Amino acid sequence: MTPQELRAQIATGEFDSPTPNCCGGHIQANLVALPKTYAADFETFCRKNPKPCPILEIVGPGEVHTSRLADEADLRDTLPRYKIWRNGIAQAEVTDIHDVYREDLVFFLLGCSFSFEAALMRAGIHLRHAEEGKNVAMYDTTIELEGVGAFQGNMVVSMRPFHHERVVDACLISAHYPKIHGAPVHIGYPEMIGIADIMHPDYGDSVKILEEEIPVFWACGVTPQNVLRRAKLPFAITHAPGHMFVADLKDQAFYQETVNN
Amino acid sequence: MTPQELRAQIATGEFDSPTPNCCGGHIQANLVALPKTYAADFETFCRKNPKPCPILEIVGPGEVHTSRLADEADLRDTLPRYKIWRNGIAQAEVTDIHDVYREDLVFFLLGCSFSFEAALMRAGIHLRHAEEGKNVAMYDTTIELEGVGAFQGNMVVSMRPFHHERVVDACLISAHYPKIHGAPVHIGYPEMIGIADIMHPDYGDSVKILEEEIPVFWACGVTPQNVLRRAKLPFAITHAPGHMFVADLKDQAFYQETVNN
Repeated sequence: MTPQELRAQIATGEFDSPTPNCCGGHIQANLVALPKTYAADFETFCRKNPKPCPILEIVGPGEVHTSRLADEADLRDTLPRYKIWRNGIAQAEVTDIHDVYREDLVFFLLGCSFSFEAALMRAGIHLRHAEEGKNVAMYDTTIELEGVGAFQGNMVVSMRPFHHERVVDACLISAHYPKIHGAPVHIGYPEMIGIADIMHPDYGDSVKILEEEIPVFWACGVTPQNVLRRAKLPFAITHAPGHMFVADLKDQAFYQETVNN
Repeated sequence: MTPQELRAQIATGEFDSPTPNCCGGHIQANLVALPKTYAADFETFCRKNPKPCPILEIVGPGEVHTSRLADEADLRDTLPRYKIWRNGIAQAEVTDIHDVYREDLVFFLLGCSFSFEAALMRAGIHLRHAEEGKNVAMYDTTIELEGVGAFQGNMVVSMRPFHHERVVDACLISAHYPKIHGAPVHIGYPEMIGIADIMHPDYGDSVKILEEEIPVFWACGVTPQNVLRRAKLPFAITHAPGHMFVADLKDQAFYQETVNN
């Protein structure tokens, strides 16, 4: 299925599942939509925390169609699931946002680690959540973010277990994609970043970790949802964890030869 | 102290200690010297196992002076300590090899992880063994090598503990130096690579690992010594672990922009 076909199925409601295993090799994106009053602070927040919140495209206010990530995709119905936030509480999960859309909304599309999964698989690295047909496991952590205005809090991370011989490979491969979370933020010891029980993720699905495997953690674009809970904005919209915007652009478009952290 | 000055002190016997904390920013090298009968097989062995045995320079037979790593350093007395091997047993540790030198010896200088330690320190990463004024900790492992002729066995690794927030940085920085062991071979769980007791290294000194720290393991140029034990060649010479050849070349000479594993 092409991203265009997938987004068409999403718009009609035919597809409303998590997207980690969709359209391999294409970029996926997290969504945060906020009234324009908060947009400047949120953009600064993203720029100060580029590992969890790498900005790929900003759309609006007064505009709902992408131009960079995809040619004219309507952000109101091309993600499989949205969360509607009021006063810091996710009040509803919906499959389109036409009825709650407001002209003053600014849409932020942020990089997503699903985007480098195809590169990991091209290197022969197995992804447990893909094998198990699950959403990726995500966790709240104690890793502090740089706060801006109302936007304060801790990082959310995604976790993938790898055979110990492939951990460094996964680290180096993902490092080539700094705009889609880049290298891991932690390798090996969940308790060191405040994760008490690896088998009970705060978002997504739990996956098996085998004896010879090590959990590897990447900054996650669900981080703004953790931050929204604390910011208590009167109104906001996000994607539901794992239910991403699937773009026309391919991962190669974000590959960088030079690797830094 | 410059590398030239250090090597002069070594040649007179004034300096005979481990070199990890010497001449920061300069390449250091492991030494293996073998009768020329074994040189071709050993060179093939190194090329098939480039992580532990990256060849920096080959000198001889009939020649004892470097030309690439340093301008005319006599390899018979410019390393602080040598081991003399007979039939797979290290029979003596000496400070020069003038009296056992033979015209048929071929000297292999192999990359050493001390060479990227300056780059780690430039990034503000602390090195416990440097702080404690010790040799680095090295361990035999269960990581199998690709065997060639008599040269068979398992990898030796060096270990450095880092605060968990700097582990990925250390991984990425060292990855830029593929000719000096490059990225780590393992992160986090010593038992997974056959290390039963992290506090009792097989070579070098043990160092403290703090609660917030994770041990990171690099392929080590002591690997050929493990292999020599099994190969039981009638005669060979190596450096003593940690007592390296300190070169004129700087780490920048081996920096590579492109990072692969």
